[in-house]
Amino acid sequence: MKLSKLIILLLVISQSVLAQSQDSVQLRKIYDEALVNGHSYKNLEYLCKQIGPRLSGSAGAQKAVEWTKKIMEDYGFDKVYLQEVMVPHWVRGEKEQAKIIAGNKSISVPIAALGGSVATPKAGITAPIIEVQTLAELKTLGEAQLKGKIVFFNRPFDPRPIQTGTSYGMAGDQRRSGPSEAAKYGAVGVIVRSLTHSIDDYPHTGNTSYEANGIKIPAAAISTKGANELSRLLKVKSAVPVKFFFKQNCETLPDALSYNVIGELTGSEKPNEFITVGGHLDSWDLAEGAHDDGTGVMQSVEVLRILKAMNYKPKHTIRAVLFMNEENGLRGGQKYAELAKLNQEKHVAAMESDAGGFTPRGFGIDAPLELFKQLKSTWQPLFEPYDTDKLTLGGGGADIGPLKNAVPGIVLIGFRPDSQRYFDIHHTPNDVFENVNRRELELGAAAMTGLVYLIDQTGFKVN
Amino acid sequence: MKLSKLIILLLVISQSVLAQSQDSVQLRKIYDEALVNGHSYKNLEYLCKQIGPRLSGSAGAQKAVEWTKKIMEDYGFDKVYLQEVMVPHWVRGEKEQAKIIAGNKSISVPIAALGGSVATPKAGITAPIIEVQTLAELKTLGEAQLKGKIVFFNRPFDPRPIQTGTSYGMAGDQRRSGPSEAAKYGAVGVIVRSLTHSIDDYPHTGNTSYEANGIKIPAAAISTKGANELSRLLKVKSAVPVKFFFKQNCETLPDALSYNVIGELTGSEKPNEFITVGGHLDSWDLAEGAHDDGTGVMQSVEVLRILKAMNYKPKHTIRAVLFMNEENGLRGGQKYAELAKLNQEKHVAAMESDAGGFTPRGFGIDAPLELFKQLKSTWQPLFEPYDTDKLTLGGGGADIGPLKNAVPGIVLIGFRPDSQRYFDIHHTPNDVFENVNRRELELGAAAMTGLVYLIDQTGFKVN
Repeated sequence: MKLSKLIILLLVISQSVLAQSQDSVQLRKIYDEALVNGHSYKNLEYLCKQIGPRLSGSAGAQKAVEWTKKIMEDYGFDKVYLQEVMVPHWVRGEKEQAKIIAGNKSISVPIAALGGSVATPKAGITAPIIEVQTLAELKTLGEAQLKGKIVFFNRPFDPRPIQTGTSYGMAGDQRRSGPSEAAKYGAVGVIVRSLTHSIDDYPHTGNTSYEANGIKIPAAAISTKGANELSRLLKVKSAVPVKFFFKQNCETLPDALSYNVIGELTGSEKPNEFITVGGHLDSWDLAEGAHDDGTGVMQSVEVLRILKAMNYKPKHTIRAVLFMNEENGLRGGQKYAELAKLNQEKHVAAMESDAGGFTPRGFGIDAPLELFKQLKSTWQPLFEPYDTDKLTLGGGGADIGPLKNAVPGIVLIGFRPDSQRYFDIHHTPNDVFENVNRRELELGAAAMTGLVYLIDQTGFKVN
Repeated sequence: MKLSKLIILLLVISQSVLAQSQDSVQLRKIYDEALVNGHSYKNLEYLCKQIGPRLSGSAGAQKAVEWTKKIMEDYGFDKVYLQEVMVPHWVRGEKEQAKIIAGNKSISVPIAALGGSVATPKAGITAPIIEVQTLAELKTLGEAQLKGKIVFFNRPFDPRPIQTGTSYGMAGDQRRSGPSEAAKYGAVGVIVRSLTHSIDDYPHTGNTSYEANGIKIPAAAISTKGANELSRLLKVKSAVPVKFFFKQNCETLPDALSYNVIGELTGSEKPNEFITVGGHLDSWDLAEGAHDDGTGVMQSVEVLRILKAMNYKPKHTIRAVLFMNEENGLRGGQKYAELAKLNQEKHVAAMESDAGGFTPRGFGIDAPLELFKQLKSTWQPLFEPYDTDKLTLGGGGADIGPLKNAVPGIVLIGFRPDSQRYFDIHHTPNDVFENVNRRELELGAAAMTGLVYLIDQTGFKVN
């Protein structure tokens, strides 16, 4: 090697080492700001306790739009604005009722209508109930066994996967497609075991999807304890078949006008290249939407607040996007991607926090393999001191998903907190502020800010 | 390289790969047993709800000794026995009372006597109170400022360290040494800010150590909210100094006979070489000792149960040791080490779980650097699928600590769960079964069993 080449190589190496060292100093400053002066926890408290449930189309959702816009304005972000989006407007109505009728016994059990479900007749539905574990069983049983009955989907969460999201994914078809599939065989209603590892007394709601032009039958989630009791009674030999009664008067109103809420720090070098960080502002109606997804929303706002508090001038424009309608339509995510495409925006990366406000473990990164390897080797050592260094290939989130096709080349990133407690409270009356730990929330906000900072430094043109 | 050498090398490599592959199959079996058929959660429920608080010398501690011995016998472990140990016997007595007296106002605040503390006089102590942040300040203030006063140690947890144990370590001198140090300057009592990040209404108790032959003054922990209020009032300008009243009638009774509880699976190849896995059976008196350390105890029993359920025949003897008196004396840990030395036992490794039953992150390993590197490179890939692959140099635990000098060459290992929530409930009335998550507990038991299995496979004679 010639001396001149050696010198150039040494310069390149030393610059890279220097960059790493500066980055690690900046990360420590970010964490200090999040942990010492953090706003995410008190903001989450307001969102949960002063606003509360925020199902799309509800008054709560509208209040949340107005309040989050106001706090981002108060923080002095460079731009704060709303993005119009028409959203489904489903309402639960009166509290549901349900009973297992086994011989002379009638046992009340807790249910909650699935989002999007139709109502039962006013007097409710009473019918024999039949337990199945899979959608495939419907075909085997056929109309002969299913017509006029209520179908009870009771396949539990598999306890073996380490990440609870895997078990959720494995069981989720029962809730999403069970009602529309059962209807094809003449079933009159569907009861779905709550999607959780936890054996508890709460029904866990969530959306179901009817097929367009399919028959719509009413569907509800039953608590896991209720499901276990129902399954037990169905196994008892008896001359009289077990029946089930349920009553719900939910309905779908006309679509409503709502909004994505967006705050920006304008890029100093590339104001027209965007890094998005977001969560969803809507929540289910049964509680405060604390972990799902108040935490993701307040962490996303906190990313911009921290960068601003540090007087950091981003090169790219950093956007906090509070998506509307993730839970039952994804209209906000779709609208954001549609406008990004329409306006030919250049998007560097989008990050989503929608897996709870628990202790951070790392990030899932949807990038080409070679880029992923490069990012992993650069970023992992930087996040190791913060125990948030699990960088895995693949990831993203529901709301940022539509960006993948809309703006080719974008890197999608899913913030990954610890998953163990998430489905204990997800979509239940227990998803309240009290179940969020301040430090866990703040560590997540810090990790997200750190990664946004690192992306902004290079725009992926690393080394 | 000669062909014969190449063949040998290939054989060695393929054996190593084969061992890794067998190990990964065994780990998966261990996790399946823990997650599908686990007993740790129901055992913990019994320990917490049927037995409850287990402070050394109490009836609860004795019941816990008898019950854990019985369940290990019922599991059919090869040997189950008790190890006698004399333990301190401190009792709290009636609930403590405390008030801030500021001018005309008298404000009740929650306190709890520190373990080992002496009582106040029957009528309590009322005295001017002075706030300090550090032990060093006592020297600066001297007898002139401190004599006849109550000293209020109010240095909060530093929010910046990522691991909460670091903040605990940084603040802990106030509780451990504050009372004996303040007494040297004529202070008449000590109030210590609870050792936690959480701003809450519970005093967090814990042990204090008086110096032998030193003056013993009564000492108590105050809730962090109470501490903040007291500090605020002390900053208000006033003609009349703020006083503090507290009353407690705790006392130290004569030492009591108690026990370490030990269960063994006898080694098939090296029955006289031991791998210890343990937690402490005693707990503070304010709650159920769920995370501290019911989880560690039931995980340790579960390690042996899982191995037995898998019909695994360990090479070395595996011991579950349920130590008595970690909280206020460490007599059980000392006795175990003393007997190991006396009996010239050969100990391969000892592992302790005493950091809560939260989601596992990894293990701290106290081994020579070269061995540590070797273990890390072998074990980390095996634990990566379980998100429990943070293997760090250094570690152990209070109860296994005395083994280090007693049996040279032993490798000490501290099980490391997520630390964020631990000090929210540590030593408080909130340390109850309901605050333990089933899967987090079981994942910890699985990780511990996996590491015990891996140690047993090689006895550290790796590659």
